[in-house]
Amino acid sequence: MKKVAVILSGCGVYDGAEIHEAVLCLLHLARQGASYQCFAPDKPQRQVINHVTGEEEQASRNVLVESSRIARGDIKPLTELQTEDFDALLLPGGFGVAKNLCDFAVQGANSQVDTEVLAVCKSFAAARKPAGYCCISPILIPRVYPAGVKGTIGTDPEVAKAFSAMGGEHIGCVVTDVVEDSHYQVISTPAYMLAKTITEADTGIGKLVKRLLEM
Amino acid sequence: MKKVAVILSGCGVYDGAEIHEAVLCLLHLARQGASYQCFAPDKPQRQVINHVTGEEEQASRNVLVESSRIARGDIKPLTELQTEDFDALLLPGGFGVAKNLCDFAVQGANSQVDTEVLAVCKSFAAARKPAGYCCISPILIPRVYPAGVKGTIGTDPEVAKAFSAMGGEHIGCVVTDVVEDSHYQVISTPAYMLAKTITEADTGIGKLVKRLLEM
Repeated sequence: MKKVAVILSGCGVYDGAEIHEAVLCLLHLARQGASYQCFAPDKPQRQVINHVTGEEEQASRNVLVESSRIARGDIKPLTELQTEDFDALLLPGGFGVAKNLCDFAVQGANSQVDTEVLAVCKSFAAARKPAGYCCISPILIPRVYPAGVKGTIGTDPEVAKAFSAMGGEHIGCVVTDVVEDSHYQVISTPAYMLAKTITEADTGIGKLVKRLLEM
Repeated sequence: MKKVAVILSGCGVYDGAEIHEAVLCLLHLARQGASYQCFAPDKPQRQVINHVTGEEEQASRNVLVESSRIARGDIKPLTELQTEDFDALLLPGGFGVAKNLCDFAVQGANSQVDTEVLAVCKSFAAARKPAGYCCISPILIPRVYPAGVKGTIGTDPEVAKAFSAMGGEHIGCVVTDVVEDSHYQVISTPAYMLAKTITEADTGIGKLVKRLLEM
């Protein structure tokens, strides 16, 4: 049974992990016979967004604590993730990636990745263990892998431009498909960067998980 | 295309809607060709639970606002739910049902249902429109339907006893199956009352949604 580490970035599309994507990642891993363990950075979220109004709330929440809602309490701080214990890495999307795992939401192509997150992702890359990135999380790929690494965030021209400016080779991709860099063992899918329905996100994520476990 | 109203009770198994169940409900509805609209009561949660430690936090959150995280912002207050606009009703589980939609978590068999929730559920029952209840949410069934209504919360003896004390006929049920009361057009499945994995919850919820749309 393959073991996959899943990195969450909170709980809710506008300030944390995209909930549908996160659950679909866990569902497809389990369905395809893999076990998983969720992790998240133990630090404050950048923002708390009211998902009804879209406005920022004057509140403070912790990325690990909110992520644990998706994991039903079964989660560990990212500092406890040991690459040797896992066969692959998987990151669902959501603005939490661009706000809590890196600062892309603020800095764009000048963004820096959270130190703990970068160390973990680079460790999987160095070990040549496969990694899957969904939705906006592929924006981390150019910071983790050498220049020229292939990935997709779908078709958004601004984000694609930033991906290229950061050194990646952006490949346009439909929501139901994946882009694979077989040299670096990294795979990405647009999910809710493009998905108009949960079934569209489900198709792309199902395909990504299948390839991730085959790699 | 059948239209289904989904009632959420927050966002997170210990103080709100169970996230996996809620997403699986939406996934199966969409996959099986139904459209859905999420609703939630616009009122404070009974509690906020830290899902890492299991302890109560000194914080206040709103059921509608937190539920909107699962609905990606596309949610309406329960007062706007018009039974005539929908073909069926669906309630995922989670402690939010027992804490926010009724007070079963505190009052047990003496529990009362939130006034708005009760009005909506009774309206679907009166209109003979089918309703599906997952996990702990079937504990509402004896308050909504006449005495003798059949339902399941799985196999937990204490909760089953309360279900019976409230006037329902409890039927034991495995996680991958459903219990249907064809007279009252109400169907229930244990989900995470029994599920040890997300795939087990997925199987039962998939079956419940299929029957709900056929009824």
